[in-house]
Amino acid sequence: MFVRAVVLNPALCGAALRLPAIVPGCQRAAGVRLYATSQAAEAVLGKSAVGSDASAKVATEKKPLNLESKSFAVNMFKGQINTSQVFPFPSVLNEEQSQFLQELVGPVSKFFIEVNDPMKNDALEKVEDSTMEGLKELGAFGLQVPTDLGGLGLTNTQYARLVEIVGMYDLGVGITLGAHQSIGFKGILLFGTRAQKEKYLPKLASGEDVAAFCLTEPASGSDAASIKTTAVLSPCGKYYTLNGGKIWISNGGLAEIFTVFAKTSVKDEKTGEMKDKITAFIVERSFGGVTSGPPEKKMGIKASNTAEVHFDNVRVPVECVLGEVGGGFKVAMNILNNGRFGMAAALAGTMKGVIAKAVDHAVNRTQFGSKIHNYGVIQEKMARMAMLHYVTESMAYMVSGNMDSGASDFQIEAAISKIFASEASWSVTDECIQIMGGMGFMKEAGAERVMRDLRIFRIFEGTNDILRLFVALNGFQNAGNQLKNLQKALKNPLGNAGLLTGEIGKRARRRVGLGSGLSLQGTVHPEVAHSGDLTVKAIEEFGATIEEMLLKHGKKIIDEQFVLKRVADSAIDLYAMVVVLSRASRSLAQGLPSAQHEKLLCETWCIEAYGRIMADMKSLRSSSSKQLFKNLRAISSALVDNGGVVSPHPLGF
Amino acid sequence: MFVRAVVLNPALCGAALRLPAIVPGCQRAAGVRLYATSQAAEAVLGKSAVGSDASAKVATEKKPLNLESKSFAVNMFKGQINTSQVFPFPSVLNEEQSQFLQELVGPVSKFFIEVNDPMKNDALEKVEDSTMEGLKELGAFGLQVPTDLGGLGLTNTQYARLVEIVGMYDLGVGITLGAHQSIGFKGILLFGTRAQKEKYLPKLASGEDVAAFCLTEPASGSDAASIKTTAVLSPCGKYYTLNGGKIWISNGGLAEIFTVFAKTSVKDEKTGEMKDKITAFIVERSFGGVTSGPPEKKMGIKASNTAEVHFDNVRVPVECVLGEVGGGFKVAMNILNNGRFGMAAALAGTMKGVIAKAVDHAVNRTQFGSKIHNYGVIQEKMARMAMLHYVTESMAYMVSGNMDSGASDFQIEAAISKIFASEASWSVTDECIQIMGGMGFMKEAGAERVMRDLRIFRIFEGTNDILRLFVALNGFQNAGNQLKNLQKALKNPLGNAGLLTGEIGKRARRRVGLGSGLSLQGTVHPEVAHSGDLTVKAIEEFGATIEEMLLKHGKKIIDEQFVLKRVADSAIDLYAMVVVLSRASRSLAQGLPSAQHEKLLCETWCIEAYGRIMADMKSLRSSSSKQLFKNLRAISSALVDNGGVVSPHPLGF
Repeated sequence: MFVRAVVLNPALCGAALRLPAIVPGCQRAAGVRLYATSQAAEAVLGKSAVGSDASAKVATEKKPLNLESKSFAVNMFKGQINTSQVFPFPSVLNEEQSQFLQELVGPVSKFFIEVNDPMKNDALEKVEDSTMEGLKELGAFGLQVPTDLGGLGLTNTQYARLVEIVGMYDLGVGITLGAHQSIGFKGILLFGTRAQKEKYLPKLASGEDVAAFCLTEPASGSDAASIKTTAVLSPCGKYYTLNGGKIWISNGGLAEIFTVFAKTSVKDEKTGEMKDKITAFIVERSFGGVTSGPPEKKMGIKASNTAEVHFDNVRVPVECVLGEVGGGFKVAMNILNNGRFGMAAALAGTMKGVIAKAVDHAVNRTQFGSKIHNYGVIQEKMARMAMLHYVTESMAYMVSGNMDSGASDFQIEAAISKIFASEASWSVTDECIQIMGGMGFMKEAGAERVMRDLRIFRIFEGTNDILRLFVALNGFQNAGNQLKNLQKALKNPLGNAGLLTGEIGKRARRRVGLGSGLSLQGTVHPEVAHSGDLTVKAIEEFGATIEEMLLKHGKKIIDEQFVLKRVADSAIDLYAMVVVLSRASRSLAQGLPSAQHEKLLCETWCIEAYGRIMADMKSLRSSSSKQLFKNLRAISSALVDNGGVVSPHPLGF
Repeated sequence: MFVRAVVLNPALCGAALRLPAIVPGCQRAAGVRLYATSQAAEAVLGKSAVGSDASAKVATEKKPLNLESKSFAVNMFKGQINTSQVFPFPSVLNEEQSQFLQELVGPVSKFFIEVNDPMKNDALEKVEDSTMEGLKELGAFGLQVPTDLGGLGLTNTQYARLVEIVGMYDLGVGITLGAHQSIGFKGILLFGTRAQKEKYLPKLASGEDVAAFCLTEPASGSDAASIKTTAVLSPCGKYYTLNGGKIWISNGGLAEIFTVFAKTSVKDEKTGEMKDKITAFIVERSFGGVTSGPPEKKMGIKASNTAEVHFDNVRVPVECVLGEVGGGFKVAMNILNNGRFGMAAALAGTMKGVIAKAVDHAVNRTQFGSKIHNYGVIQEKMARMAMLHYVTESMAYMVSGNMDSGASDFQIEAAISKIFASEASWSVTDECIQIMGGMGFMKEAGAERVMRDLRIFRIFEGTNDILRLFVALNGFQNAGNQLKNLQKALKNPLGNAGLLTGEIGKRARRRVGLGSGLSLQGTVHPEVAHSGDLTVKAIEEFGATIEEMLLKHGKKIIDEQFVLKRVADSAIDLYAMVVVLSRASRSLAQGLPSAQHEKLLCETWCIEAYGRIMADMKSLRSSSSKQLFKNLRAISSALVDNGGVVSPHPLGF
C-alpha cells in the first residue's frame, strides 16, 4: 500500500529523482531533533513551535528551564563557565565494574579479530550467521539489559567501551547491534513497564528476538512530527489498529520486535478537543499484518539490513503502548538522546583502527629514498588524525561518564559528540586513504569500506545539519531565558541583588574590555594553563556574540540558519577544547607517560580552535557577514529557479 | 615474477598492511610531479635534485627559466600580474570548430542518456559491450587524433567539451576513454615519429586497439624515477628486451598498445659513463611476453579496467622507442601536463549533473511544511556548490584555451585545475548526498556511485599532495630566480636600470606600505572592480610572503612542506579568483542574462578567498606558525614511534 502511494505521488522523496518507486533508507529520526529545535525556539521566542504542541508541552513539562544547569555547553552560551560536569575528567567505574569490563574487552576483541570477517559481510550484504551466533553467545545483544532479565547490565561507559571495539572492526555489525539495542528496544528499557520488560527483554537480550526502531516515513525524515502512520483505538478499548509504512529501518527485515511511532487521537486536557498526537508502541511481527521489504542497496554498512516495514491493519494490544498515550515524541527523543554517545564511542574505535593502518603504511612505504612519514605533508595529516581521535574519544567518555553520574542535562553535549565523531572519523578515514595513495582505493586494503560505511553517520539519527540547529537553538534558548530574567531583575533590582551583581557585573566588565572575571586557573593543570586561558577568552567572545545575536535578531534568530550554523560550529569547537583540557589535565596530574604528548594534542587543538572561534565570532559581528549571507541566498535562489547551474557554458553551448 | 617479488618483499606498498600479495592500482605517475618538484627546487637552490639527473637535464634544456613568463601563476609568485593568458577569458574556437563541436555535443549527450547505463556498468565492473561499440562508432576513441589518421582532430577545448559530457554521466567510462587517449597513446601523438603515428593511430582512433599508460610500479608511485622495469638493448642493436611489472594500469587488461617506461643504459655525453635513464616505448601485446592480471577490485570507477601488466623478456624493436632514448621522463611529464585540463573538464561535468540532482531534491522535498531549499542550511550548501562548479569550469576552459593558443607555460595552472576540480567535485557530491539525506546513501539515487568514483581523482595522475608541492616549488623557483637576478642587478645597477626601477620600486613601495602600484582596473569589468581590488591586494600579500619565505628559508624551502602546502593553497585560491574575475567580466561585457548571477558568484568567491589567503599569509609570517608546525611534527613522530594512537584509553584499558 505504502509502495503504491509513493508511485502515485512524485513529490515524495526519491521519486523526485525519477527513481524507482521503492524509497530506501536511513535518515532515521532526524525530525526529533528539529522538533527539539522548535521547542527551543518556542521557549526563547514565545512562538508556537512547528510540529506537535502536545509533545512540546510534554517536553517542556519534563525539562523545565534550568537557570543553574550544570551543563558546560548550556553555560558557555551564557558566557559562563560551569566546570562541574567537565572537571575532573569522569572516572565513573568502580573496581568491580572496571574488572568486569576488562574481562569482556579481551574476548570481544578476539572475536572480531578471529571470527568476524568485515570484508565478507560487506560482500554478502549481511552479517554472517556465524558472527551473529557468536555475538549472541558473547551477550552482545543485551549489553545494557539488567542482569535479572538476561542481559549484562552494563553502564553507559561500559557499553561505550565495547561498542568502541565493534566500531574499530566492523561498522556494519555495529549498526546491526546498535539498531537493536541503542534504539530498537531502548524504549522498553527507558519507558517500559515492569510487565513489558519481563515479557520482551530476555529474548531481546539473548538475541533470540531482534529489535528495530520505526520512525522515518517517506515524507517524514527530519520532520518526524509529520508522520502519517496511524493507530486507532478499537471501540472496545483493548487494541489499536496500526496502519502505515516506515522506510529505511535498520534491522527492518530481521526484527521480531518493533518500536513504532504512530499518530493517535488524544483528548486535549485543557480544551477537550481531540488532537493527533504521537504514541510509541511495541509491535511484534507475530501480531500479523507486519511485512518488510527487501534489503535496500546502499553505499556502505551493507552488512546491516535496511528495509521498509509496513503495517496493514495490525492489531496492537493496549498493553503494548510504550510510555504515555500521546507521549511518543518524548519517548523518541529520549531514546535518541540516550544513544548518541554510543556513536561517538564506536567511531572513536573506527578512527583508532584507521590511524593504525595509516601509520603502518607511512612507516613502511619508501618514496624518494625516505619513509614517507618523514615528509611534512604526511606528518600534518597524521597529527590531525591524532587530534581528531583524541577529541572524539574524550567526548564519548565525557558524555557517557556524565550520564552514568546521573546528569540530566547532556543533550547539547551528546549532539555535539555525534556531530564531531561522524565528521572526524570521515576526515580521518579520508586522509588515511590519501596517505595510502592508490592502495587506499582498493577493496583489499579495507579503508574504502570504512569510508563507505561512515558516509551515513553524518545523516542518520539526526542529520548533522539538523543537530547543529539543535545545538545552537538550545543554547540560544538558555541564554535567552537568562536575558529575560535579567530584564526582570532590572525592574526589581533590590530583590535580585545577587543575580544582578553577578551577571550585570560580568557583562559590564566585558563591555568595557576588562574581561569577564572568568578563569580556569586552578581547574586545569598548570602545564596547560595557556590552553585554559584561550578557552576562557573564547567563551567570553562566544557569550558576548550570543548576547549580541539575541538582541539583534530577537525572535527571528530561529530563521537565521546561516548564523545558527556558525554558532554551532563554534560551540562544537569550544566543547572540544574543554574536553581535551580536562583529559590532558588528568593525565598530567596522574603523571602518565603519555602526558606530554596529550598536552601537545591539547595545546595544538586549543590554538587552532581558538583561532577558528574568534574568526567566526568576529565575522558574525561584522557587517560583512550580512552581505555574504545575502549573496549565498541569492545564488541558491537562482539555482532553484533554474533547476541547476545558472551560468551558461563558457563556450556558449 | 613481479607478483613473487611483492610476496617476498613485505616493505612494498600494500604488503605493509598484511594484505594479499597482488598489489592493485591507480596512483599513476605521481612521481613525475615530484620529479618536477625536485627540478624546481634544484633550479632555485642549486641543489642536486632527487631522481634522475639525466631527466632533470633534459627538462632544464627544454624549459629555460623564463623571466618574462606569460603565466599568471608564475607571475603571482613574484608579486606581479601578467594578464595576457587570463584576460579576456579565452574564446579560441573559430566558427567552423564551434559548428563541428556543436554537432557532436547533441549525439554524445543523447548516447549517454539513452544508451549507456552507469549503474549497470558499476555493477558489472566493466563498461557494457554495447556502450563500448557505440563509443567507437561515435569516434570517442580518437577525439584528438588527426583526421587524416582516422580521428576527429579536435582541439583541446573541443576535447574538453566532450569529456565534460562523459564526466557528467559516467566517470567509469570517462577513465576508460581517458586512459586510452589522454595518457595511453598521447605519447604517440606528442612524440611519435610519422611512421609510428601512421602505424598505430588509425587503429587506436577507431577503438580497434585500446591503449594504456604503464609507469607505476609497486615501489614507484609518486617517486616514478625509481622504477625498476628494464629495457636492455640487444647486441645487434635491433631490439630491447623488456622485463618488469607495472601495477594499477587503467585499461591494463584490455589494451593492445602500451606506453611503457623502463630504465635503459645510456652513455652520458659529458662524462662518457653509462647511466640508467628512463626511456619510453610503444609495446604491443602481440610482441609476446606481455601478460595482465585480473581486474582489481576498487571503491569506484569499477567500470574501468585496472590491472597489473607484466613484461617477461618482451622483444621491443628499436623502432618502438618513443621520443629520445633516455628522454622518457620528458615524455611522461608532457603527457601528464597535457592531459590534466581534461580531468578538470570532466569533473566540471560531473558537478553540473550532481548539482542538478541536489537542486531537484531541494525543490521537491518538503519538511516542516516548506520545501527544503527555503532553509538557510540548504541554501548555503547549494550556493557553495554553484561557486565550486563555476571556478572549476572556468579553470578547465581557461587552461584548454591557453593551450590551444599555443601557450607553453601552463603547468602550474594545469596542476591547480586538477587539484581544484578533484576537491571541488568531491565536496559538491558530498553535499549533494547530505542534502538528499538517507536517499543520498542509496545506490538507486546514483550519487553514492559518483562519490565512490571521485575518490581516486585526488590520488591518481599526481596525488593532490604532490601536485601542491609542485605548484609551490615551481612558483618559488621562478620567484627565486627573479630574486637572484635582482641581486645581480644590484651589483651592476647602471646596466640594469629598467629592471631595478621596476622591480625594486615595487618592493620598496610595498615595504613602506604604499602599495605595489599593481592594478586590475581597466582589465576587469567595472562592476567587479571590488573583486579585482581584492585580487590585487591578495597578490601583493602573497608575493611579499613568497619573498620573505625565500629570504628566510633559502635553499631549505624545499624541505618546508608545511609552508609549501599553505603557499599552494593560497596559489590555488588566487588563480581561482582571477579565472572567475575574467569569466564574469566577459559575461558582464557581453551583457549575458546570467551576468549579474556570475558577478555574484565572482564577488562571493573573491571575498572568501581573499580572507583565506590573507589569514594564511599572516599566519605564515607570524612566529606562531613555527610553533604549530613543530607541534604537528612532534605529534606525528610520536604516532610513528607508537605504531598508532599514543594516548592510553581514558578508562585505562
